[in-house]
Amino acid sequence: MVNNMLRRYVTEEIEYTGEQLRSLWAFKEFDLQGDSIVAFIGPCHVRGTHMVDQADVRDGLYIYSESMLHFIAEHFDMDLEKTICRQRLLVSLAQDLLLRQVRALRVQREGDDLYAEGGKMSVSIATLTPVSSIIHFGINVSSANTPIATKGLHDFDIDAYLFAEELLDRYVAEMEGIKLARAKVRGVD
Amino acid sequence: MVNNMLRRYVTEEIEYTGEQLRSLWAFKEFDLQGDSIVAFIGPCHVRGTHMVDQADVRDGLYIYSESMLHFIAEHFDMDLEKTICRQRLLVSLAQDLLLRQVRALRVQREGDDLYAEGGKMSVSIATLTPVSSIIHFGINVSSANTPIATKGLHDFDIDAYLFAEELLDRYVAEMEGIKLARAKVRGVD
Amino acid sequence: MVNNMLRRYVTEEIEYTGEQLRSLWAFKEFDLQGDSIVAFIGPCHVRGTHMVDQADVRDGLYIYSESMLHFIAEHFDMDLEKTICRQRLLVSLAQDLLLRQVRALRVQREGDDLYAEGGKMSVSIATLTPVSSIIHFGINVSSANTPIATKGLHDFDIDAYLFAEELLDRYVAEMEGIKLARAKVRGVD
Amino acid sequence: MVNNMLRRYVTEEIEYTGEQLRSLWAFKEFDLQGDSIVAFIGPCHVRGTHMVDQADVRDGLYIYSESMLHFIAEHFDMDLEKTICRQRLLVSLAQDLLLRQVRALRVQREGDDLYAEGGKMSVSIATLTPVSSIIHFGINVSSANTPIATKGLHDFDIDAYLFAEELLDRYVAEMEGIKLARAKVRGVD
Amino acid sequence: MVNNMLRRYVTEEIEYTGEQLRSLWAFKEFDLQGDSIVAFIGPCHVRGTHMVDQADVRDGLYIYSESMLHFIAEHFDMDLEKTICRQRLLVSLAQDLLLRQVRALRVQREGDDLYAEGGKMSVSIATLTPVSSIIHFGINVSSANTPIATKGLHDFDIDAYLFAEELLDRYVAEMEGIKLARAKVRGVD
Amino acid sequence: MVNNMLRRYVTEEIEYTGEQLRSLWAFKEFDLQGDSIVAFIGPCHVRGTHMVDQADVRDGLYIYSESMLHFIAEHFDMDLEKTICRQRLLVSLAQDLLLRQVRALRVQREGDDLYAEGGKMSVSIATLTPVSSIIHFGINVSSANTPIATKGLHDFDIDAYLFAEELLDRYVAEMEGIKLARAKVRGVD
Repeated sequence: MVNNMLRRYVTEEIEYTGEQLRSLWAFKEFDLQGDSIVAFIGPCHVRGTHMVDQADVRDGLYIYSESMLHFIAEHFDMDLEKTICRQRLLVSLAQDLLLRQVRALRVQREGDDLYAEGGKMSVSIATLTPVSSIIHFGINVSSANTPIATKGLHDFDIDAYLFAEELLDRYVAEMEGIKLARAKVRGVD
Repeated sequence: MVNNMLRRYVTEEIEYTGEQLRSLWAFKEFDLQGDSIVAFIGPCHVRGTHMVDQADVRDGLYIYSESMLHFIAEHFDMDLEKTICRQRLLVSLAQDLLLRQVRALRVQREGDDLYAEGGKMSVSIATLTPVSSIIHFGINVSSANTPIATKGLHDFDIDAYLFAEELLDRYVAEMEGIKLARAKVRGVD
Repeated sequence: MVNNMLRRYVTEEIEYTGEQLRSLWAFKEFDLQGDSIVAFIGPCHVRGTHMVDQADVRDGLYIYSESMLHFIAEHFDMDLEKTICRQRLLVSLAQDLLLRQVRALRVQREGDDLYAEGGKMSVSIATLTPVSSIIHFGINVSSANTPIATKGLHDFDIDAYLFAEELLDRYVAEMEGIKLARAKVRGVD
Repeated sequence: MVNNMLRRYVTEEIEYTGEQLRSLWAFKEFDLQGDSIVAFIGPCHVRGTHMVDQADVRDGLYIYSESMLHFIAEHFDMDLEKTICRQRLLVSLAQDLLLRQVRALRVQREGDDLYAEGGKMSVSIATLTPVSSIIHFGINVSSANTPIATKGLHDFDIDAYLFAEELLDRYVAEMEGIKLARAKVRGVD
Repeated sequence: MVNNMLRRYVTEEIEYTGEQLRSLWAFKEFDLQGDSIVAFIGPCHVRGTHMVDQADVRDGLYIYSESMLHFIAEHFDMDLEKTICRQRLLVSLAQDLLLRQVRALRVQREGDDLYAEGGKMSVSIATLTPVSSIIHFGINVSSANTPIATKGLHDFDIDAYLFAEELLDRYVAEMEGIKLARAKVRGVD
Repeated sequence: MVNNMLRRYVTEEIEYTGEQLRSLWAFKEFDLQGDSIVAFIGPCHVRGTHMVDQADVRDGLYIYSESMLHFIAEHFDMDLEKTICRQRLLVSLAQDLLLRQVRALRVQREGDDLYAEGGKMSVSIATLTPVSSIIHFGINVSSANTPIATKGLHDFDIDAYLFAEELLDRYVAEMEGIKLARAKVRGVD
């Protein structure tokens, strides 16, 4: 197998403030050296200078959730368009996983957002660091007290830990599958 | 709106033989100059020197379907890994569209393949040309007389033309959304 | 048409201090999301830490003009050499436009500088941001009180607004023409 | 001085048929190893399989001139968009040179074409080889017997050899200036 | 560990004719899907159209050895300059290995060539395929009957198989070390 | 000759603190505009926020030497993996030079480190700036008072100045050789 991407579920609670979205966070915190994806559960509160999405900044938005399942992926190349493609695959994998676990659920992906049963389920951003590209994807565990109407994993009786482990596996498999698909085709005219 | 990608549904039947998977096919056939995606319906019969997937060549496989809905996308950059990401988003959009149209359906995406109710629904490949990167995605309309167990759109009473128009729209919107997402984020440390 | 680049003439006066040469300026100020070029008129006074050209810093130079027509272009890719090529095309288009409007004029382009009738007409710089590449091109409206001998649009009775609109149009057309030219050639051996 | 680009004026007449537009032509013919630009004079007759511009192929066009001044530039990187920018700078330099030599001349550049006094003066194409990117730019010496209305250097009493030497020098200087401009700027936020 | 590169010592004798220097050779012959390096022993006879080095073609050279230890590395990215850097690291590792095994030996590396005790020991080339970049490095086992003065592993009582296994290991470790070094540094100003 | 890389031996002593590892240092200090390598002798003391290697930061390491021969190379492209390849070639050239000067010496290269006779001889790092990629390589002149067991050039009676001049020459030649090797090969299938 080529290009093993590193993955980690972190059991301790971490509050996501946006400060985690920086280069080498997974290396410095969890000793993951290389392309990686890390998951953890914790509140989400991103404000002011830690906002990365300048459309949200312009609109005066902020991000808040009492409990979210967070994913931070870092890829050591610097093509942001490619990493946005990866981000959308990650969100698409999450959508598919929700549907597999709750057959009756209606889940829509719109770009990098997931919506379910009339509520926003997730937030996501992808950007560049000075040495890598990086993704944050957070999916609500709880939907209580959010600034807009949301849904969370607990509204659908989905276990956040199991969901995290499954999504980590599937993202790593997707990235490895892409590397393998890169290495089996001849060119055409 | 930035970066309008070109799209076309071609009403005439075209047999897909693999010869269509070449640079500037959409430009020479349909005058689409720029990144594009074209859809058409026709038989699929790819053999021998037109096979691009060298794993299939090694295994002696060939591709055959009496009637398939084909998509050919061309992007004028030369990062094959990125185009494989795009390919998987295209397949993921097709999966989502199938689920939206037939709520009870079980559709799995495995890499660039779709499976439904025990049958393989699609074939796909992405590769490089000397001047671009290119994707073929074909989804069975008919599942009759295929070399392996398959399912097709007609097995689920899905109209191929409407499916095509919707998927063309959604792929174009996805690509444009990715370009827009590229242009709203500040970098982080 | 592919790849519509965004363009805007801003009627309000803006003093160019170098602080405008940052990522997403056009998005945050004028809601232009994507590759863009913005023009405005205002004084030019760039000093100290806002100087980008380290050759000028080394030589103790600063940039001053009572009134300049400014262009700021941002491209969401990160190849500085390519953006310097674009910058020189922009300056070349400005040179051509001056000659079209004043047939008798002698205008020379030397790299990214324009000279006319013994005076320097313009300043320009191109550099990288953390997420994009960016160009500033300023052409004197007034030639009064500049630290070196200059010429400005008013010395040749050229209307700055009309000049701006025309140059915006031509730069956008040039960039779009380049994208189109990318998508019509086969490779050679 | 950094990055000396190689340049050569070839005195012997060479008929340009399109076969010269291939990788390493300057290396194999003239021992120029590295980025290079070569000029020569000769007839121009490009037909059929040697046509690179597929828009011309589609329209049934061919290229013919009894005598043209040809430039072939090769750059050992593979970004076609960047090389098209370089191509347009080359054409722009030729336009500027024409105007310097014949003050009264009206010369327009439209993309990669030059027009003067109602006649087309030039042809040009840029494309990729398997190892490089490559430009052909041909400017008519003679305007006799061309399939469309043309103008040539001799119509304006311009010496083709002197024009070639000057344009070679200016293109090399432009490319070197771009490399130098790459290496003097700090990044911005 | 990240990015395991694939490696294989092939025990059967293979004559190296240059035809092996093509994309996906390791995948099609040995089922190695991904970046790989393969070693084998066999005669070396590269002529005519299989010559890749156009300087050798120009000079009428050909490559011949009764017995050589060959290495073919394929990397699925398309930056030839980077792959030439990798090639020179491979040759440098071979030089170091020769010195470790025979302390008294004088081995010089000149670019991608090794010389020992007055004889040329190796040949090497790196180039692009339509989908990857690729390296051939051959080191003489026998120095008999070569067109120029050569030295081979047997002249120094070095076992070709052990040498091959060691060099394969070290090249793979070098490439993996480079990936790891990529993923531990912060950027600087 | 193509692509002359700039090189400079600086005779004045400079203490290396890590602050020198920034973009355009060679341009601002020594007027070297373009890819460059600079050598100088001085103490080495890198601590705290100037540490670039986050593995060392994590492990609480710092870098100290009473006297080191330093090399700082800057390349104006932004592919860190490629620059790490260049870094390892630089270290490999230093190893080779040590062996040429002291035949009996045992010098091992492990990644970007050199070891001789039981002592660590060097430190090195490569990273990205906002506009370039950059390498520091320091080889001990003195081995006195270092935090770990080291060896230095003076332990082997090697003149640091002559060593520096030779290594500068060889690195520049290696980089130019790589550019030349880029420009002599045809592609393969």
